[in-house]
Amino acid sequence: MTKVIKNGTIVTHDLTYKADVLVDGGKIIEIGEGLTGDEEIDATGCYVMPGGIDPHTHLEMPFMGTYSADDFESGTRAALAGGTTMVVDFALPSPGQGLLDALKMWDNKSTRAHCDYSFHMAVTWWGEQVFDEMETVVKERGINTFKHFMAYKGALMVQDDEMYASFQRLAELGAIAMVHAENGDVVADLSAKLLAEGNNGPEGHAYSRPPQVEGEATNRAIMIADMAGVPLYVVHTSCEDSHEAIRRARQQGKRVWGEPLIQHLTLDESEYFNQDWDHAARRVMSPPFRNKQHQDSLWAGLQAGSLSVVATDHCAFTTDQKRTGIGDFTKIPNGTGGLEDRMPMLWTHGVGTGRLTPNEFVAITSANIAKILNCYPRKGAIRVGSDADIVVWDPEAEKTITAGAQQSAIDYNVFEGKKVKGLPRYTLSKGRVMFDTGKMLGQEGHGEFVKRAPLGEVNKALSSWKQITAPRPVERSGIPASGV
Amino acid sequence: MTKVIKNGTIVTHDLTYKADVLVDGGKIIEIGEGLTGDEEIDATGCYVMPGGIDPHTHLEMPFMGTYSADDFESGTRAALAGGTTMVVDFALPSPGQGLLDALKMWDNKSTRAHCDYSFHMAVTWWGEQVFDEMETVVKERGINTFKHFMAYKGALMVQDDEMYASFQRLAELGAIAMVHAENGDVVADLSAKLLAEGNNGPEGHAYSRPPQVEGEATNRAIMIADMAGVPLYVVHTSCEDSHEAIRRARQQGKRVWGEPLIQHLTLDESEYFNQDWDHAARRVMSPPFRNKQHQDSLWAGLQAGSLSVVATDHCAFTTDQKRTGIGDFTKIPNGTGGLEDRMPMLWTHGVGTGRLTPNEFVAITSANIAKILNCYPRKGAIRVGSDADIVVWDPEAEKTITAGAQQSAIDYNVFEGKKVKGLPRYTLSKGRVMFDTGKMLGQEGHGEFVKRAPLGEVNKALSSWKQITAPRPVERSGIPASGV
Amino acid sequence: MTKVIKNGTIVTHDLTYKADVLVDGGKIIEIGEGLTGDEEIDATGCYVMPGGIDPHTHLEMPFMGTYSADDFESGTRAALAGGTTMVVDFALPSPGQGLLDALKMWDNKSTRAHCDYSFHMAVTWWGEQVFDEMETVVKERGINTFKHFMAYKGALMVQDDEMYASFQRLAELGAIAMVHAENGDVVADLSAKLLAEGNNGPEGHAYSRPPQVEGEATNRAIMIADMAGVPLYVVHTSCEDSHEAIRRARQQGKRVWGEPLIQHLTLDESEYFNQDWDHAARRVMSPPFRNKQHQDSLWAGLQAGSLSVVATDHCAFTTDQKRTGIGDFTKIPNGTGGLEDRMPMLWTHGVGTGRLTPNEFVAITSANIAKILNCYPRKGAIRVGSDADIVVWDPEAEKTITAGAQQSAIDYNVFEGKKVKGLPRYTLSKGRVMFDTGKMLGQEGHGEFVKRAPLGEVNKALSSWKQITAPRPVERSGIPASGV
Amino acid sequence: MTKVIKNGTIVTHDLTYKADVLVDGGKIIEIGEGLTGDEEIDATGCYVMPGGIDPHTHLEMPFMGTYSADDFESGTRAALAGGTTMVVDFALPSPGQGLLDALKMWDNKSTRAHCDYSFHMAVTWWGEQVFDEMETVVKERGINTFKHFMAYKGALMVQDDEMYASFQRLAELGAIAMVHAENGDVVADLSAKLLAEGNNGPEGHAYSRPPQVEGEATNRAIMIADMAGVPLYVVHTSCEDSHEAIRRARQQGKRVWGEPLIQHLTLDESEYFNQDWDHAARRVMSPPFRNKQHQDSLWAGLQAGSLSVVATDHCAFTTDQKRTGIGDFTKIPNGTGGLEDRMPMLWTHGVGTGRLTPNEFVAITSANIAKILNCYPRKGAIRVGSDADIVVWDPEAEKTITAGAQQSAIDYNVFEGKKVKGLPRYTLSKGRVMFDTGKMLGQEGHGEFVKRAPLGEVNKALSSWKQITAPRPVERSGIPASGV
Ligand SMILES: [Zn+2]
Ligand SMILES: [Zn+2]
Ligand SMILES: [Zn+2]
Ligand SMILES: [Zn+2]
Ligand SMILES: [Zn+2]
Ligand SMILES: [Zn+2]
Ligand SMILES: [Zn+2]
Ligand SMILES: [Zn+2]
Repeated sequence: MTKVIKNGTIVTHDLTYKADVLVDGGKIIEIGEGLTGDEEIDATGCYVMPGGIDPHTHLEMPFMGTYSADDFESGTRAALAGGTTMVVDFALPSPGQGLLDALKMWDNKSTRAHCDYSFHMAVTWWGEQVFDEMETVVKERGINTFKHFMAYKGALMVQDDEMYASFQRLAELGAIAMVHAENGDVVADLSAKLLAEGNNGPEGHAYSRPPQVEGEATNRAIMIADMAGVPLYVVHTSCEDSHEAIRRARQQGKRVWGEPLIQHLTLDESEYFNQDWDHAARRVMSPPFRNKQHQDSLWAGLQAGSLSVVATDHCAFTTDQKRTGIGDFTKIPNGTGGLEDRMPMLWTHGVGTGRLTPNEFVAITSANIAKILNCYPRKGAIRVGSDADIVVWDPEAEKTITAGAQQSAIDYNVFEGKKVKGLPRYTLSKGRVMFDTGKMLGQEGHGEFVKRAPLGEVNKALSSWKQITAPRPVERSGIPASGV
Repeated sequence: MTKVIKNGTIVTHDLTYKADVLVDGGKIIEIGEGLTGDEEIDATGCYVMPGGIDPHTHLEMPFMGTYSADDFESGTRAALAGGTTMVVDFALPSPGQGLLDALKMWDNKSTRAHCDYSFHMAVTWWGEQVFDEMETVVKERGINTFKHFMAYKGALMVQDDEMYASFQRLAELGAIAMVHAENGDVVADLSAKLLAEGNNGPEGHAYSRPPQVEGEATNRAIMIADMAGVPLYVVHTSCEDSHEAIRRARQQGKRVWGEPLIQHLTLDESEYFNQDWDHAARRVMSPPFRNKQHQDSLWAGLQAGSLSVVATDHCAFTTDQKRTGIGDFTKIPNGTGGLEDRMPMLWTHGVGTGRLTPNEFVAITSANIAKILNCYPRKGAIRVGSDADIVVWDPEAEKTITAGAQQSAIDYNVFEGKKVKGLPRYTLSKGRVMFDTGKMLGQEGHGEFVKRAPLGEVNKALSSWKQITAPRPVERSGIPASGV
Repeated sequence: MTKVIKNGTIVTHDLTYKADVLVDGGKIIEIGEGLTGDEEIDATGCYVMPGGIDPHTHLEMPFMGTYSADDFESGTRAALAGGTTMVVDFALPSPGQGLLDALKMWDNKSTRAHCDYSFHMAVTWWGEQVFDEMETVVKERGINTFKHFMAYKGALMVQDDEMYASFQRLAELGAIAMVHAENGDVVADLSAKLLAEGNNGPEGHAYSRPPQVEGEATNRAIMIADMAGVPLYVVHTSCEDSHEAIRRARQQGKRVWGEPLIQHLTLDESEYFNQDWDHAARRVMSPPFRNKQHQDSLWAGLQAGSLSVVATDHCAFTTDQKRTGIGDFTKIPNGTGGLEDRMPMLWTHGVGTGRLTPNEFVAITSANIAKILNCYPRKGAIRVGSDADIVVWDPEAEKTITAGAQQSAIDYNVFEGKKVKGLPRYTLSKGRVMFDTGKMLGQEGHGEFVKRAPLGEVNKALSSWKQITAPRPVERSGIPASGV
Repeated sequence: MTKVIKNGTIVTHDLTYKADVLVDGGKIIEIGEGLTGDEEIDATGCYVMPGGIDPHTHLEMPFMGTYSADDFESGTRAALAGGTTMVVDFALPSPGQGLLDALKMWDNKSTRAHCDYSFHMAVTWWGEQVFDEMETVVKERGINTFKHFMAYKGALMVQDDEMYASFQRLAELGAIAMVHAENGDVVADLSAKLLAEGNNGPEGHAYSRPPQVEGEATNRAIMIADMAGVPLYVVHTSCEDSHEAIRRARQQGKRVWGEPLIQHLTLDESEYFNQDWDHAARRVMSPPFRNKQHQDSLWAGLQAGSLSVVATDHCAFTTDQKRTGIGDFTKIPNGTGGLEDRMPMLWTHGVGTGRLTPNEFVAITSANIAKILNCYPRKGAIRVGSDADIVVWDPEAEKTITAGAQQSAIDYNVFEGKKVKGLPRYTLSKGRVMFDTGKMLGQEGHGEFVKRAPLGEVNKALSSWKQITAPRPVERSGIPASGV
C-alpha cells in the first residue's frame, strides 16, 4: 500500500521545491508533481523534510543502580512527536566489560523503539580485549563511531595515552573518534573544593565545569586526533572556548566537527541561579548552560559551518531522581530532556529569526550528521530510495511547550513555557505515520538498528594526507658522518 | 536521441554512488542502474560529475584599445576541454555607460560560446541611471550579482559611499554584492612610488599590491555589506589577510563567501622573481601570487568551509600584449589564463593529496557556486531534470600541461610543465559531447545565457535577521524629560 | 624653597618602594629616605605617583559658532583635581587654514592653563602648504603627533590617499600618525537613513556609529600606516572590533597603540536608552559607549598590553549646548567630560578589583604615553631630574562623583553617582601644590607648553626594518630575456 | 675602591641617555655626568646596559649517570663573556626526594659560580612532603618559582591533578608556576612509533615533538593555572601553537608569560635534516627547532609584548654524550648551549634589523624577567642602589661565532659560523670586571645566590580578582522550594 504526501514543498539540505512524495515499503519510491497513492497525506502549506536525526541520546542509561527515565520506548516516542525519526544512543561498557557484551545489553534495551536508531560505542577503559573487539564492532556490527569520556574521573574517564591508543586504532579501522570533552581531573578537584566551601547547590555544578575546562579538553582531543590521523566529533560543544578550539583546528585543515545542543543554544546559566532548587537541579547537565556570549558563538558557528550538528544529549531524570543530589550537587544525576523539543526550538530561534535558512535547518538536524555517520542518503534525505523518514512541517503551527503535554516520562520540561512556531504536522518513520497533528500513533518495535560502514570519504582523504605528510628518515651515509 | 553514460560512479557534492545517467534534450532524464540509450558513453573507471562552473572570467574584455585574447569562443572551448561547462563573465559598463547598454555589448560577444554562460553586472560608477537600471537587470535580465571594484583608481573604482548606496539597493532587490577587494588609493600611490624608485619590472606589480591591501579592502567591503544587509561575495581571495577578514565575518554570522583562484592555490610569488621578464609578466594579475603560507591558508579555508568556490579570473593576454608593460609594470595587462586547467590542477593538488574528498571537489567547482548564484540544481548537480552539463572524469589519466596543446588563444600557459593526474574523459554541455578523450568537438553558439533569479534563501534569511535587529527609537515622554 | 613629600610609597610604572621625594625649582632633585625640605607634604598611607597625563582633550574647541565649555583654565583645573598634571590638546586647522596659523590660535587659548600641556596637530585637509608646514611643526614647534579624522565627512575628514600621503610625510619626519577611526562615509549615510526613519533621539547617535564602523576604519588606518612605515596611535579605541584590529597588527610586529577612554571602560550603551533625553544626550560622544563585552575586551587589552593608554577625550558641552540636537541627534555636540574622574575611576575599577597592579595603573595613566609622545622621563616618572608633576594618592579615600562638586564648567557629570575609592590627596604641578585634600589651589598660567622631539626609538627601529625589507628590483639581463 | 664607567650611553628598559656610572662595593652608587672614580672604564661609543639575566639554565644537570657538560663554573664564565650576569637554574628533585634535599645539592654545585644566580624549584612528584616543604622553600629559601614538567613521562612528568594541586599551593604561597609544556603521553607513544618505523635519527626527535604537542600542553597548563589562580610562566615557548595559547589567555586578562629561546628565534628545523648525524644530534633539544613561520611568530610576540623574555635553556652536552643516542634518538641527551651567544645573537637579529629597540632589548634580556622573578631593581636596572651587574655593549663590534673561541666546555656551538654585530666590551658582575674586550677575567665563587620574595604585585592583583569573582552559593529558602 502506497502513501503520497501531497501539495507540500520539499526542503532538503540543498533544495527547496514543490513536489509530492510517494512512499512504499518504508522507502521513498517517487518524487514529482501530481503523484497519487493509496493513501494521501496533505502537506498543504507545509515543508516536507527529512525526519530529524538526534545523534546523542542516553535512553535507559544505567545510573547509580537505577536508569535514566526515558527508555527506547518513551524516548523514541518523544522523538517522533518532535519530528525526529532516528536516534543514536551510546553503548557504555562497565569497567572491564567487553564491547560486544555491552552491545548486547543495548540491543536488548532497544527492542521497543518506535523509530530507527543506531549506536555509538564508548571506550571506557583500555586493554587488549577492547583493542580486538573494536574490529568486530566496526566490521560486523556496523558501528563506526567511538566515544571517549575525558571527564567522569574514576568512572568512564580515559587517560590521554589510552585515548591516543584508541584513536590510532580507529584510524586503522576507518572509524571516527568522539569525545565528551571536559578535563576530568580539574572537574573532580574543583567539585571537592566547592563542596568543601559550602557550594553544594545545583549552581555548584555549573561552577565546577567552567567553559575553560571544556575548551581545554576539546583542544587536547583535537591534538591527539591529529596525531592519530582520525576524524574527530566533539559532542555537546557548549561554549566559545570549545568552539574556538574546533574552528582553529578546522582552519588548519583538520577534520573536526562540533555538536551544539539545543539546550545550550536557547537556555543560559541564569537557570542555575533560580531560587527553586528543583528548577536548577532539573537543568543540571554536563556541560552546564553558559551565558549569552557563548550562545551567540554557537549560533554563529552553525551559520558559518564551523559547527555542524544540533543534538540533545537527551538523558532524562525525574525530579525524584534529581533530588538524590540535595546537599551535594555531585550527586544530582546529569542530564536533561529535549528529544521532542529540538526541532521546534531550533526552527523558532533559527529559521524564525533569519539566522538559518530552511535548508540549513535540514542540514544541521539531519543531513550533516547522516553524512558524518555514513548513513546518508538512506537517512537525512528526501530522495528516491531513501528511507521514508519524513517530517511534514507546518511553519505556521504554534504551541507553548509544557511538561503536561509531552511524551517524555519525566515530570517537567526544561523548555516549559517557551513558545514555538513551526511544528510537525505528520512524522513518518519508514513510511508509517507515527505522529499526526498532535496525536501520537507510535508502534513499539517498529524501529530497527541502522548499520553504518567505516571508511567514509573523510577517513579516506585524511588517511591519504597523513601518508603523504608522514615523517621520513633522513638518508645518511655513516652515522655520525665523521664515522664511529 | 538519448545518450547514456554507463558504468561510472556518480560524484556530486553530497553523494558517491554507482549509476548510469540517461540524457535527452539537453537534460538528465533518468539516473539508475542498467540504463540504455541510443548512444552510449563509457564511464568505466570514471567519476561522473557535474561539469565545472567558473564564476569568474573576462572573455574579450576591452583593454587599452584592444581585448583580452580569449573570447567567448576560445574561452568556452578551453573551459570544456578542462571539464568546465559554464562560465560567468563580467559585464563592465564604461564610465557613464548604462547597465543595459553594457549588457547589450556582452550579449553580442557571447553569441559564439560553446557552453552555457551567465553574467555578473559591474557597478563602475554611481548615479540615478545605474540605480534605476539595477532593477531591470535583476528582474528582467536574470542577473542577481553585481561587482564593485575597490581598485583601478580613475577607471573602474567606486568610492565607499557609492558602494554603500549600491549595496543598499542590492539588499532591496534581493541580489548579491561582489567585490574586487584591493585598496585602490594605496595601490595607485604605491605603484607611482615604486616606479619612481626604479622598481618597474613585473615584480613591482606584486610589490604594489601586498596582502595587507587586499585584506583591508575585504574587511571594508564586509562592513559595508553588513551595514547594507546584503550578502557579499569576495572574488579572488588570494591571501590569509583577506581570508581572515572573511572568516572573522562568518564567525559573526555574516553572509560572506570567498573565492580563491586555482592560480593562487598552486603558484607562488617566486614566479615574479624569475630572471625572464616574459615569464614574470605573463603571471601578472591582480591580486598577484602570494607565498606558501597564504596558499596553506586558502587550502585550509576550502577544507574548513570558510572559503567556498575555486575560480580562475581567466583573462588571457598574449606575450605581445604583456610586453606593453616593458619598463613600466603598471602597463602590463592584468590577467592570466586557467579555464582549461582549473579542474585538473585542483583535483591533483586537492583530491590527489587527500586535502579534499571528491565530493568536496564537486562542491567547490560547481555545486556551491550554483547555489550562491541561484541556478542550482539546474547547474551543479547530477539530478533528474538538471541540465546535462556533465564531466566524465578519469582519475587515472595524466598529462603535463603545455601551451602547445591548449585551447586558449595565447602563446603560453602559467601552469606550463605541471603534471596533473585526473582529467576529463568526456565533457558534455547540455547533453552534447563537446570533448572526447583529448579531442575538442565544440560547437560555436551552442551555449546559452543562464538567467538567475533574485531573492535566494540566504537573501531572505538575512533580510529577516536585519529586520528583527533593526535599531528602534527609545520612547520618551517629553524631550527633554525636564520639559522644553 | 624646597618641598619634601614624606612617608609615602613611590609607585612608578616599574617600581614600588618607600622613599621621600625632594622637589625644587619645579623638578625632583632627590629621592631617598629621611629627606628634609623647607616645606613638608605628608604622604603617610599614600602612594606617590607621577601625575596623570591625559593625551586626549578638546579644550575650548570651536563648535558651530560656539566652543566646548571647558577651556584651558577650567579644564586643567579639573585635571589637577583628579591627579592629572598634563594634558595634550588637538590643534585643529579649519579647511584651508595653515598648520602654523592654527597653532597660533591654540597657543592663545592655552595661556591660562594651570598645568603643563602639549598639542597634537590635526591634518584636516591636504595640500602643499600642509606638507611643507609639517616640517616646521615637527622640527621647530616640538610636535611629533598628527591626527587624522576618518569621520566627520564634509568637515575634518580626510580621504585614504590624503592620509597615505600624510603618513608618508610623517615617516620621513620621524613623527607619529594618529587617527580618529570611524568610516565617515558610512556614518554619514547611516545617520541620514536613521533620521529619515524617525530615529532622531540620542540613541540614534549610537546606532549611527556601530562597532563595525570603528573596527573597519582602525583596520584601514593600520594598513596605510604600515605601507607608509609610520607608527600609529589609535585614539579612543572603544570596542573589540577596533581592539582586534590593533592586536592583530601588533602580532604582525606592527607598531600600533590603542587608547581606550575611561568612559568606555566604565559606562555602557544602556545610557542611551535612558528615558530622559538629557541624560542620553549628555553622553553622546564618538565613538559611543558600547556593551559589556566590548568593555571586557578593553580591560583585557590593558592587562595584556595590547592597549596602552587610558585617556578621556574630554570635550565638555553644557546641557544647553547638547539641546541643540533635540529632534536631530546629528546636531548634538559630540563629547563628554572626564578629566577629573579618569584617575579615580580607573583606580577603583582597575586596581581596586585586581585587574591592574598599581604599577600598571601608572603605566597606562602616564608613563606609557610619555614614552610614546617622547617626553619621558621628563613626564611620567618619579626620578631625579623629572618635572615635579606628582600626585600623592590616597588609596583609602572615597567619594561619590557629583557635578555639584566638580571643577568642570558644565552642569552635569557622566559619572554622577559613581562611588570611587582612591583619590588624590595632593596634586603638584612642577613642584607647586595645586590641589590639597579636596581644595583647589590652582594658578592660571602656571602651565607651559611641552615640546616633544621627533625620531623616537620606535620610529628609528621601524625605519630600519622598513629599509631592510623594502622591495628590490629583480636583476635581469635583457628584458624580455628573449631580447627586445 | 670605586669604578666609573665613562662616556657611554645608558640604555635601560625605559630610557636612553648619556651618563657615567659610579660603582662601589658591588653596587651602583651614582649616575650622572662627569663622574670620577678610582678606576675608569671607557664606554665611548658604547651602551651601558643591565647585564643579561638568563632565567633558564641547566648547569651540571644529572643525566643518565653523568652530567650536562657546563657546570656553574664554565656556564657562568660563558654567561659573562656574552654579557649575561645572572643565571637561574632548576633544582630538580629525584623521584621521592624532598625539595630541601635537592636544594642542598644545587647549593653545592653552585659554589664556583662567577656571577650571581638563583634557582627555580622543580616539582617532579607530588605528596605531603612536597606540599609542606614548598612553604619553606618560598618563605625561607627565597624561591618563588616552581617548575612542572608536562613531558618526560616516567621521569620528571607530573599528572594534571598533581599539577593542579601544586598550582593551588603556589597560589596560597604567592609564588609563580612554571611549566615545560609538551604532552608527555603523546611524545612517549609517538617516539616509540617512530622508532618502530625506523625513524631513529635525530630528526626523529623533532618528529616526536611537533608544535601541536607543545601548544596543547601550554593551553592545558594555562587553564589549570587559571583555575588555581596562580600566575604562569611558560618556559621555552618555541612555536605559534604555544604562543597562540599564551596570547589568547592574556587577552582574557590571564597572567601568563612566554619565554622564547634565542635558539628558536634564530635557528630552524632544517638543522635536523643535515646529512651529518653529529650536526643534527648536537641540536637536539626539547622543544626542537621549528620552521620560519614559528620564528616569525616568536619575533612578533616579543615586539607585541605577548612574549616577555628571551632565555637559552643552556644545557650543554658534548658530541660524545650526544652519541649515546646513535640508533635511537630518544637516547640523545636533550639540550644545547647558548649562554655566551644569547645577547649578541638577539642584538644582531633584533636591534640590528629594527625589530626591537635597544630598550626593548634590555626589557627582554633582563628587566622583564627581573620583575617577574621579583628581584627588580636589584637586577635588571641601571639605578642607584642596584647591583653593579653591567654590560658595556659595543654596537659596532663584530665577530663570527665559533666553538674554538668559546667559554663553554663543549666541543661545538650550535651557532657556529653565525656573524654577530654588537658584543660586550666589558661585563661587570657586582662591580668587578669579569670580561674585558674579549678576555675572560672571571673569579670562581664570586657569584652568590639571589633570594626572591613571594607575593609580587601580579600575585596580589590576581588574588584580589579571584576573590572578587569567586563562585558564591545561591541563597535558597527551603531546598527544594516545595519543601523536603
Ligand atoms: Zn557527555
Ligand atoms: Zn551524552
Ligand atoms: Zn579582479
Ligand atoms: Zn576578475
Ligand atoms: Zn575623536
Ligand atoms: Zn577627540
Ligand atoms: Zn624544558
Ligand atoms: Zn630547561
